[in-house]
Amino acid sequence: MVRYKAIIAYDGTNFSGFQSQINGRTVQDEIEKTLSKIANQTVKINGSGRTDAGVHALGQVIDFAWPTKLPLEKLRFALDTQTPADIAVKQVELVADDFHSRYQAKEKTYEFRVDIGKPRSPFRRFYMSYYPYELDLEKIKRALPDFLGTHDFTSFCSGKSEVKNKTRTIYKADMLVSDTEDELLFTFCGDGFLYNMVRIMVGTLLKIGNGRISEDAIPQIIAARDRNAAGPTAHPEGLYLKEVKY
Amino acid sequence: MVRYKAIIAYDGTNFSGFQSQINGRTVQDEIEKTLSKIANQTVKINGSGRTDAGVHALGQVIDFAWPTKLPLEKLRFALDTQTPADIAVKQVELVADDFHSRYQAKEKTYEFRVDIGKPRSPFRRFYMSYYPYELDLEKIKRALPDFLGTHDFTSFCSGKSEVKNKTRTIYKADMLVSDTEDELLFTFCGDGFLYNMVRIMVGTLLKIGNGRISEDAIPQIIAARDRNAAGPTAHPEGLYLKEVKY
Repeated sequence: MVRYKAIIAYDGTNFSGFQSQINGRTVQDEIEKTLSKIANQTVKINGSGRTDAGVHALGQVIDFAWPTKLPLEKLRFALDTQTPADIAVKQVELVADDFHSRYQAKEKTYEFRVDIGKPRSPFRRFYMSYYPYELDLEKIKRALPDFLGTHDFTSFCSGKSEVKNKTRTIYKADMLVSDTEDELLFTFCGDGFLYNMVRIMVGTLLKIGNGRISEDAIPQIIAARDRNAAGPTAHPEGLYLKEVKY
Repeated sequence: MVRYKAIIAYDGTNFSGFQSQINGRTVQDEIEKTLSKIANQTVKINGSGRTDAGVHALGQVIDFAWPTKLPLEKLRFALDTQTPADIAVKQVELVADDFHSRYQAKEKTYEFRVDIGKPRSPFRRFYMSYYPYELDLEKIKRALPDFLGTHDFTSFCSGKSEVKNKTRTIYKADMLVSDTEDELLFTFCGDGFLYNMVRIMVGTLLKIGNGRISEDAIPQIIAARDRNAAGPTAHPEGLYLKEVKY
């Protein structure tokens, strides 16, 4: 047996998330079904992490054991064309037998896209969160650096999470405004992210932009270690897992 | 009664086209249903032209008679928020009683988007046509100006069309390549377009780029006045009605 790592993209709109579950169509199930058909035996995959229903990926990483060595492009092409159209297989490479896409991930980058145009674009309804209220973008820009560094992010973690250590290090937190001024692109890079963390960070930043949370409140929100201290969880359709580094 | 003109955008993916038909969900039906509910009486609309199933609009124009004068933004907002999420109402204005969005249209602009990346992007599958074959973009650029001017475009019209006069004038025909080099954006502007005309023009241009039709063949194809002389009809998901001028 050999082990392959693959970089995949998916449109999360019609998935109940990445990870297999009892009900609902998942990315993991679709890929395992395709791999098992190609290999003519059961193939299971690891992913770098779960993504929720409606959340997208530009660079999710998976790995799987495989019976024989194959030309990489042949395997990539077979997997790309045989998975459904909402999954793309961008790259396949051979890795060490002990590679694990979740345990060995060193750095993850997420993007979050917000449609701030009026009216809401029909073309963005599954691909950006919509925010129709007033925004002072300068307030958001001034608040963003307060996320940088190593903190206990309990306040930015869903109460449903069972993870014990909620300390994470954020290397990058920024926002770009599109030339057309109707789209925000947030980028967050860190050593890992808690359940709903990026969505709660964005939900809080939008409240700051709207003036309903003070622009210097983030250090206090972090210090509170209480989910109720932060803003709401932004909608899943704006979130993209962009890149995982090893 | 007064008459309103509205500029609308729609994601054509889940529509059987613009125009009402016996079966299938249409843009016209959805808008007439909403307008009739708001007015509490039957309201019918005219459109600047039909779009096929899967074809999108950034600036389709409609007009309708209405019982009373209303503040424009109030009417726009009511219509925008009460139509389904795949229709957006961008602008509403009061027009002369004899305004007709189809008969008085002077100029139309269409865009056609092609995904030429590898692998095909899951995010573009409903919003761009996909072309995975080799393309010499310079050949396409050299061929495009041959569409300009006044011609009988019978060769670029679906055989199903019942229109008699197939002479149209094309003012603009060009192509932009995205910075990422994985996307083509064609723009065509003219006094009117025949049934499937833009899609057949693009289907022919892609064959020219791929070397299977000569780059100087367009004048002969036009002169043939025969649909079989041109290339295939490109897929509907790449086509956008961008603007209609009066």
